[in-house]
Amino acid sequence: MPDAPLYERVAFIGLGLIAGSMAHAMRRGGLVGETVGTARSADTRDVAREIGLVDRVVDSAAEAVEGADLVVLAVPVGAMGGVAEEIGPKLAPGATVTDVGSVKRAVIEAVGPHIPEGVHFIPAHPLAGTEHSGPRSGFATLFDNRFTLIVPSEGSDRDAVGRLETLWQGMGAHTEEMDADHHDLVLAVTSHTPHLIAYTMVGVADDLRRVTDSEVIKYSAAGFRDFTRIAASDPTMWRDVFLHNKDATLEILGRFTEELFALQRAIRTGDGDQLFDYFTHTREIRRGIIEAGQDTDAPDFGRAKTK
Amino acid sequence: MPDAPLYERVAFIGLGLIAGSMAHAMRRGGLVGETVGTARSADTRDVAREIGLVDRVVDSAAEAVEGADLVVLAVPVGAMGGVAEEIGPKLAPGATVTDVGSVKRAVIEAVGPHIPEGVHFIPAHPLAGTEHSGPRSGFATLFDNRFTLIVPSEGSDRDAVGRLETLWQGMGAHTEEMDADHHDLVLAVTSHTPHLIAYTMVGVADDLRRVTDSEVIKYSAAGFRDFTRIAASDPTMWRDVFLHNKDATLEILGRFTEELFALQRAIRTGDGDQLFDYFTHTREIRRGIIEAGQDTDAPDFGRAKTK
Repeated sequence: MPDAPLYERVAFIGLGLIAGSMAHAMRRGGLVGETVGTARSADTRDVAREIGLVDRVVDSAAEAVEGADLVVLAVPVGAMGGVAEEIGPKLAPGATVTDVGSVKRAVIEAVGPHIPEGVHFIPAHPLAGTEHSGPRSGFATLFDNRFTLIVPSEGSDRDAVGRLETLWQGMGAHTEEMDADHHDLVLAVTSHTPHLIAYTMVGVADDLRRVTDSEVIKYSAAGFRDFTRIAASDPTMWRDVFLHNKDATLEILGRFTEELFALQRAIRTGDGDQLFDYFTHTREIRRGIIEAGQDTDAPDFGRAKTK
Repeated sequence: MPDAPLYERVAFIGLGLIAGSMAHAMRRGGLVGETVGTARSADTRDVAREIGLVDRVVDSAAEAVEGADLVVLAVPVGAMGGVAEEIGPKLAPGATVTDVGSVKRAVIEAVGPHIPEGVHFIPAHPLAGTEHSGPRSGFATLFDNRFTLIVPSEGSDRDAVGRLETLWQGMGAHTEEMDADHHDLVLAVTSHTPHLIAYTMVGVADDLRRVTDSEVIKYSAAGFRDFTRIAASDPTMWRDVFLHNKDATLEILGRFTEELFALQRAIRTGDGDQLFDYFTHTREIRRGIIEAGQDTDAPDFGRAKTK
């Protein structure tokens, strides 16, 4: 535990999976003083109060940020600008505002103009999550051994950036700095396009006349169920991601369909060598992910009981 | 444990994940008398001998099936016909031949003509697997609570079919009967197309200039890593699946690209409502899979440590 808290008072705007997990992880590490939180929905605020998610739940974002030296915007990307506009005039001088949005360029454009002189705006993105959402879904270990990307701008105060990175490291994460446009492209590859493809595949399966939903469900262990986890993620969050990382997602989707058509053609023409070579190559990426500690080598993600 | 073994001698042709898991599961249940096995590769046979995967490892398929009352073809779909041709003349009268191929119509056409009068050919397909392969990858619980589809033909001997179903149930599986063409369509949806899409997405990520493999690997926890598991499956097996379930796979792929283009258009035109509705719908399928006991509700497939 650090000698002094990194921040005296942290305000969470939004109390879903990420904010909730941050609150748990901050408590685990004894990293901060008071935590305050709010959410747009009264139900969410009630649940947060009931389970003691943060020290104090308040009814508005403007109230939450009063006297906070760290403000965490943890709402869907499309809602960030409105929140920033509301809290801008209430931010304490010297405070840091950060966010946890999955898209960075659009958030910077929406939030940046509302941040007053003397307040540090340092966007961030923890690359961790689960298919669950809401105030009960968070847990302290979510960020352990995962990466959080920090997206400072050229003029960012290095002390403020360093303190935010120390906080994320205290919550278990590795941190790396990246510029906003590269972030959005990397995430289009590692997250946004895979989610869109998973949503699409699950939608297709749900919509066939000749194969029933019951068959899809019963026989899903043959591969399909791996897709359904990320296709069960929060719809509002993902709608906003696609609307706000349009260009990079469309670029990677274009590459994806190009490759898919090439493999489709190999199937149609019976080109077994092309298929075999392609499928051999993709094993190496999986091996890299396991060696980097970003997934388990246990069969079936560890779902299978091999003992 | 049954009073008498269901089969006196089981011959496995091929000693990979599925045959190995069957051998373990048969042993666990005390379901059969002797198990005999062979594989084309001498290395595989050596490993199988070393770990005692079956009671007796022999050097050829023709030798393996001698005196067996159950023969299990557990080789890639494209190799089934050649094996059937080799063993056909050696099969014992009254024996049952089954297979575990992921495609059924093509296997029936390749194997059927080599099965002599008086031998029962009853195709089957256990809907279970992991991304690992080879003689060391099998384990006794692989089929527990999973489905095995049995694909008898109209003239199949009902006693022989019933005995094979009892065997699969003894290995932990639920069994259902299905005709070959419907099987191939259902699997195109629940398995073959998802695998092709996963292979494609992983291939695209590997092939980008502006995003390095190292970045893809480090930041994979944002969604991508779910795809890499099935894209690490055995390349020979999957090459053969696509070549031999061409029509159904191409049909489902066509539906998939149609839907993907519709969502791509919604992103391009900024139609958030369409995206939101689509993403809301797909959550229900996941819920169905969990309620049917075909996947875990633990966050992140249970990879996440929430305690």
